[in-house]
Amino acid sequence: MYRHFETDLQELKQQILAMGGSVEKGLAEVCQALFTKDHGKLKEVHEQETKVNDLQIAVDQACVQLLARQAPVAKDLRLVIAIIKINTDLERMGDQVVNIAHCTNDLFRMGQALTVPADVLTISEKVRSMVRDGLDAFVRRDVALSRAILNRDDEVDELRDKIIREAIQMVRQKPDLLESCLELIMIAKNFERMADHATNIAEEVIYLATGDDVRHGKSGSATP
Amino acid sequence: MYRHFETDLQELKQQILAMGGSVEKGLAEVCQALFTKDHGKLKEVHEQETKVNDLQIAVDQACVQLLARQAPVAKDLRLVIAIIKINTDLERMGDQVVNIAHCTNDLFRMGQALTVPADVLTISEKVRSMVRDGLDAFVRRDVALSRAILNRDDEVDELRDKIIREAIQMVRQKPDLLESCLELIMIAKNFERMADHATNIAEEVIYLATGDDVRHGKSGSATP
Repeated sequence: MYRHFETDLQELKQQILAMGGSVEKGLAEVCQALFTKDHGKLKEVHEQETKVNDLQIAVDQACVQLLARQAPVAKDLRLVIAIIKINTDLERMGDQVVNIAHCTNDLFRMGQALTVPADVLTISEKVRSMVRDGLDAFVRRDVALSRAILNRDDEVDELRDKIIREAIQMVRQKPDLLESCLELIMIAKNFERMADHATNIAEEVIYLATGDDVRHGKSGSATP
Repeated sequence: MYRHFETDLQELKQQILAMGGSVEKGLAEVCQALFTKDHGKLKEVHEQETKVNDLQIAVDQACVQLLARQAPVAKDLRLVIAIIKINTDLERMGDQVVNIAHCTNDLFRMGQALTVPADVLTISEKVRSMVRDGLDAFVRRDVALSRAILNRDDEVDELRDKIIREAIQMVRQKPDLLESCLELIMIAKNFERMADHATNIAEEVIYLATGDDVRHGKSGSATP
């Protein structure tokens, strides 16, 4: 019985990692489309999202079956519940990648009169590393890496605010760029929301590894 | 043992309803602040968010304890997992109410030169009814009401797009309103995201009541 549980759990972890892999791939593709103006990449983003959505449903069903058949307790139960939550975070990330693809497509449609600011590249790279590290932290139960992700979330918030200020400045100088700049702002906002979901995953890992609930700035431990 | 489970489950439902009540109250307060320019209401919004955050942690802990102690199966297990997810949706809604409060505060700070379009009132009322009906549907396992919520989500998406077009039009006519109009767009986007979370709750209720997973436009049933 117990060995069966371990096998099911390994399979579930593999599904979550496959899902994370699709989110990462979609994110890489949308960044390539945005920064190299490779329109063809946008279609591939949608293919990744379909995979993510299908996996979300499969993971949810597998979690319910696992809980029903094995009735895990303590750490095993916490792990299954963490997977249920991480599953939701990854699916939302998939949606946000698609939102960025829509904004990028609209930018292409508007004729790309606008130069994408360097800070958009910076925020995209930071968010990509947060997504990748979030999954690595989950696999390795790496608390230090998880805490580093929480810190990077603040940097992403600052970058988003900076991009918004830059976009406002661009519109002031060239009012014709209003709609393009709005798309830029939406792109920055979506990256920032992806960072929020990576942060949720990091918080789950910390809770799994230490039992310490760090959501809403709460922490049972005395460490900063 | 079973009676104990029922008591725990009832308590959990009460906590979810208290959380939903705080989200609804915060939403009502931020709408009052936005439409009647009652600045004092914004402080109350933050008080509601604190309640929502505290309840989120309490509900999560209660769910883990319930699963560990009672090992529910079938419908009872699905209900506990639905509560775990609805808990996350309500917490995010609390965040979005706070985002709207920040935007409203920024609008006040900018001197309110801008008239809030009637469509913002319409979207706020639609979202408030979706949040309320989502919780009612959950309490009563009301599939018809849940399906009505899914339909209203499309109306909210259209309203958000209309508000964005109106805001762009306003900036074209009065470039000084750029930053105020950006806040308006963010307010519309946050209302729309709240509607997404109400839709998630409605989908959970449909799944609980019928076993039919309607996420991502999928449906196992032949009914439309």
